[in-house]
Amino acid sequence: MTYEIAVGPNVRKSPYFDATVEDGVRAFAVYNHMFLPAHYGDPDGEYDRLIEGVAMWDVAVQRQVQLEGPDAARLAQVLTPRDIAGMEPGQGRYVPLCDHDGWLINDPVLLKLADDRFWLSIADSDIGLWATAIGRERGLDVRVSEPDVAPLAVQGPKAEDVVAALLGEAVREIRPFRFEPRELDGIPLLLARSGWSKQGGFELYLTDTRRALALWARVREAGQPFGIGPGAPNDVERIESGLISYGADMRRQTHPATPYEMGFGGMVDLGHDFIGRDALAPLADQTPPRRRVGVVVEGDPPTPGHPVPLERDGAEVGFVSELVYSKRLGRTIAVGLLQSGVEDGLSVRVGETLYPAHLHEVPFL
Amino acid sequence: MTYEIAVGPNVRKSPYFDATVEDGVRAFAVYNHMFLPAHYGDPDGEYDRLIEGVAMWDVAVQRQVQLEGPDAARLAQVLTPRDIAGMEPGQGRYVPLCDHDGWLINDPVLLKLADDRFWLSIADSDIGLWATAIGRERGLDVRVSEPDVAPLAVQGPKAEDVVAALLGEAVREIRPFRFEPRELDGIPLLLARSGWSKQGGFELYLTDTRRALALWARVREAGQPFGIGPGAPNDVERIESGLISYGADMRRQTHPATPYEMGFGGMVDLGHDFIGRDALAPLADQTPPRRRVGVVVEGDPPTPGHPVPLERDGAEVGFVSELVYSKRLGRTIAVGLLQSGVEDGLSVRVGETLYPAHLHEVPFL
Repeated sequence: MTYEIAVGPNVRKSPYFDATVEDGVRAFAVYNHMFLPAHYGDPDGEYDRLIEGVAMWDVAVQRQVQLEGPDAARLAQVLTPRDIAGMEPGQGRYVPLCDHDGWLINDPVLLKLADDRFWLSIADSDIGLWATAIGRERGLDVRVSEPDVAPLAVQGPKAEDVVAALLGEAVREIRPFRFEPRELDGIPLLLARSGWSKQGGFELYLTDTRRALALWARVREAGQPFGIGPGAPNDVERIESGLISYGADMRRQTHPATPYEMGFGGMVDLGHDFIGRDALAPLADQTPPRRRVGVVVEGDPPTPGHPVPLERDGAEVGFVSELVYSKRLGRTIAVGLLQSGVEDGLSVRVGETLYPAHLHEVPFL
Repeated sequence: MTYEIAVGPNVRKSPYFDATVEDGVRAFAVYNHMFLPAHYGDPDGEYDRLIEGVAMWDVAVQRQVQLEGPDAARLAQVLTPRDIAGMEPGQGRYVPLCDHDGWLINDPVLLKLADDRFWLSIADSDIGLWATAIGRERGLDVRVSEPDVAPLAVQGPKAEDVVAALLGEAVREIRPFRFEPRELDGIPLLLARSGWSKQGGFELYLTDTRRALALWARVREAGQPFGIGPGAPNDVERIESGLISYGADMRRQTHPATPYEMGFGGMVDLGHDFIGRDALAPLADQTPPRRRVGVVVEGDPPTPGHPVPLERDGAEVGFVSELVYSKRLGRTIAVGLLQSGVEDGLSVRVGETLYPAHLHEVPFL
């Protein structure tokens, strides 16, 4: 069963919206109060393109929360358990954010643009409100805003060739999570080696969104020889690759999780002051009550589009947040959170039916 | 052109989801990270039902941010410019919320459940994060959470008859914005005389969401003699009635507005301490730079589903957030924000076309 999406002014359109329509977008999700293309009518072909070729994604929903001013670094550091002291301008870093009780509230990439200017490239929660409240209540000299920046992702094994054709061979030297300012026909960008897949690629952070359709056309054109086509963040690939989706795998108000449970323990640096430190410090040496797991599900379960319970001997021992069928593996796989100590005898419950399941390391591929 | 909505675990399903599917829901919006039924395939009939009969709406997306503890009232008061000192348990009040610079960040109804327990029944932004940050950073003794409460709205001129049939004649005595705890076949509710329409009605705040399908069935059954049918918050009616939609009419990160601009000046009480007070106080005696207006648009403009500019003599002087065709008025109407002092000579720009427009008082009906 499919449903229409209501297109109304409460949700923003991406500056690439018209281009995605022209390229045949069929479905949208909503993320950070903005429409996110979900597929273009050929999920299977779009997956293949990501795994074997190159795809271009409208990910303008990946909003930037900008911290700017003398205390920008101080605010960035207090927002995350991860140590950011060694970061240089032009460097990005994955930075889980926690509330005062140690529950995750987002897991952005932090981009250091200058000593006094940072972007949090956020997942789906209003970190602009959070960062504003923390900065102002602490009296920090920092302005928090959401500049109109629209990332366009180029992802897949041929992505580097496309971006090199577009911006020159030097892009091949850009290291993971590094970014550099570029211009393309006068279109201002930050070019980052990053993206929400494990197939390699770049994100073009467009900083003048009036040029969005021109940028889309240029990427499309440069990608033609490499078979580029439109696509979207891919749920199958992200499960295979073990990428975390805040909102799906955990969300503070519905299924909260700590950094330790999500496998981010190594990023928690108790040597600096940050929000959630008092709650997390006592947990540092303990086995977390739950752990992130990969699961292979037997039988032919439907993929219900919402989290479902993990059970053992009739008792709920965790949940999987998303099930997908991986054609590369030829089976249904999932990720979830499971009680520590539980290793076997698992089933996934979908509706009234139990499907046998066993643990698998993450990433699956 | 219509598009599908991607149904995935990043967006929550309402506990009424299966019932709305059974009743033929055709389109969804996304609001507070949750699916909101948008229509059931007959927008015209659904409008008529709201205006002339009675409709039932799944508005579980209207999440409750609970403030609980000795300092709950103190936190509630600091969050809003409006004076809440006189509120009694069982009373609700519309309370705009501002950031430190005086920009609106949400416009919930505050429900006072007890002297130490409040709900903010929120519009579409993460006020749970905001209220947590403010409460914790100020060291207040209050817990902020999002309890799993699922409002079901019964709206329309026959709504009172339906609710009386369901819960007894005494409900007719409940005054606007008042609420009372009730049980229906053991299903626990807060029954409030409220709802996001001007057609009258109630909201049933279901507090045990395991009973959602049972509640839906009971309301449906009790409403049969009155011609009840499923519906959704109605954009045409809300524009006719002048109801504000945070996210559409203003949103902090894209088109911010102050309470004075939105016509909430009378709710700003400078006699108490609240977030945004320092920014708003100097504005109290000034003409706001913009004001909220109603607009009648001539010609036959399309309704583009996003805000569009208001122009005068080729210059942009404001915007309308949403255009709708009102069949009761036989014309296209809109609401927006317009520069103060501008009264006439207006056009609405949709794409390359200008449509003549003139001001109209709000509400239109």
